[in-house]
Amino acid sequence: MSEFDDGIAVLQRSVDGDRASFEASLDDGFRVGGGVNGGYLLAVLGRAVAEITTPDGHPDPLVVSAHYLSASTAGPAQVDTHVVRSGRSQTTVHATLAQEGGPRITALATYADLGGLPDDVRTTAQCPQLPPRSECPPTSAAPADFKKTAPLLDRFDLLVDPACVGWAVGQPSGQGMIQGWFRLHERDLDPLALLFAVDALPPVTFDLGLPGWAPTVELTAHVRARPAPGWAVVRHSTRNLAGGHFEEDCEVWDSAGRLVAQSRQLARAPRVSAS
Amino acid sequence: MSEFDDGIAVLQRSVDGDRASFEASLDDGFRVGGGVNGGYLLAVLGRAVAEITTPDGHPDPLVVSAHYLSASTAGPAQVDTHVVRSGRSQTTVHATLAQEGGPRITALATYADLGGLPDDVRTTAQCPQLPPRSECPPTSAAPADFKKTAPLLDRFDLLVDPACVGWAVGQPSGQGMIQGWFRLHERDLDPLALLFAVDALPPVTFDLGLPGWAPTVELTAHVRARPAPGWAVVRHSTRNLAGGHFEEDCEVWDSAGRLVAQSRQLARAPRVSAS
Repeated sequence: MSEFDDGIAVLQRSVDGDRASFEASLDDGFRVGGGVNGGYLLAVLGRAVAEITTPDGHPDPLVVSAHYLSASTAGPAQVDTHVVRSGRSQTTVHATLAQEGGPRITALATYADLGGLPDDVRTTAQCPQLPPRSECPPTSAAPADFKKTAPLLDRFDLLVDPACVGWAVGQPSGQGMIQGWFRLHERDLDPLALLFAVDALPPVTFDLGLPGWAPTVELTAHVRARPAPGWAVVRHSTRNLAGGHFEEDCEVWDSAGRLVAQSRQLARAPRVSAS
Repeated sequence: MSEFDDGIAVLQRSVDGDRASFEASLDDGFRVGGGVNGGYLLAVLGRAVAEITTPDGHPDPLVVSAHYLSASTAGPAQVDTHVVRSGRSQTTVHATLAQEGGPRITALATYADLGGLPDDVRTTAQCPQLPPRSECPPTSAAPADFKKTAPLLDRFDLLVDPACVGWAVGQPSGQGMIQGWFRLHERDLDPLALLFAVDALPPVTFDLGLPGWAPTVELTAHVRARPAPGWAVVRHSTRNLAGGHFEEDCEVWDSAGRLVAQSRQLARAPRVSAS
């Protein structure tokens, strides 16, 4: 098993009609600062849902909407699932991940068989054109002190477009965009890994000169196809920072140039630092 | 009461701890073809949630994620709510609207007090520049035969930008965008009405030469501020039609030029007609 699969593993503890309960162990390696990464939590939750929906022929997340309730910490967690509707082509499940102290994230997940969808592609969006990977600095090269607070950075390879990495040296571009090459260490992306990928980058507010924690309020991910193997391109952007919140849109393009995932989250804007 | 408020009215039937149940009557006036409009359903559900969250000081939808399970019809409906978490600044509720025959739409809704948010606005998105309203044809002028199948069109004023109305005469632009001026008949927009507004326009696939029903799989709406009174600008667009699905992004700009709502839905693409 890869470290990612190991990190999102769940164990079914009970099942009662359309309800089931799973045990998970949130891995400290996916921590950023005081909390566990939101995309990782989504993949843990998505892993539990897949256990329920796969026997019905719906193994893949098609759309998952998660509301983040309180910060998760490394350690034991429980995922409770409830099938809201099981149809011919889709199954919709309500799932909540909880730890001692209360619910952390609650989500609605509609699963389907991505392999069984029509193969038409009429996408008008364009894949971002990035410099070659050799010209994009890896986030794994961040200072050791910083990485101690964000062990998440060692869970994947992220090579950032140099045009939007100025924030790392105190010169944010102000355009509200971060993009780069992305892959897991030990295995290719799949639909569950896409749930992780859409929230793995630094908050796009870094590029607006707002360093600091940007807690997710809600994140919805559409998974539109099973990704081709190899490096993906991941792009985060925002256009509406207002009222103490911002939206963060994410696109994931696979190595074959297909837009395989889109997500949008609503997050709380970091407090402006006094410095 | 306006016809909109009348249409989304709910009556609390029972309450049991963190669970409550409401009765609603889905109004045939919000029908399109064989189903009831999805934005209207979202507003009915949102109306029930507001009953639960308002006493806690969280009267406004901040973000609502709805999964559409089966087509609703005019007539009686029931909304069941369950408070997942009640916090200081937000309350998150799981709500399901059901009719005889099963659940129609299930949603997670996080409510807050939009009036209490900070007043910073650093939006970089630009409000679409539309021609004056006198130059934009109203959808209420659609042929009477068509309006019989879509009484929804008489529930609001929508004046469509002539640059993206070619589909109405068999000449879709192919750009995947529909925008126009929007208002309710008898009252100004508010956060609940924005839940309706984000799904009130024709499917953006009309502009791609794909007439026909485009059933929503999931829709998430962010309500970012209470809208100023007057005409709003509503814009729908899509960039990723593939695999039998498409995403539809919606923006609602209020009369003061503020981006007050953003939504994204995943919908099933209409079948290509044989003609």
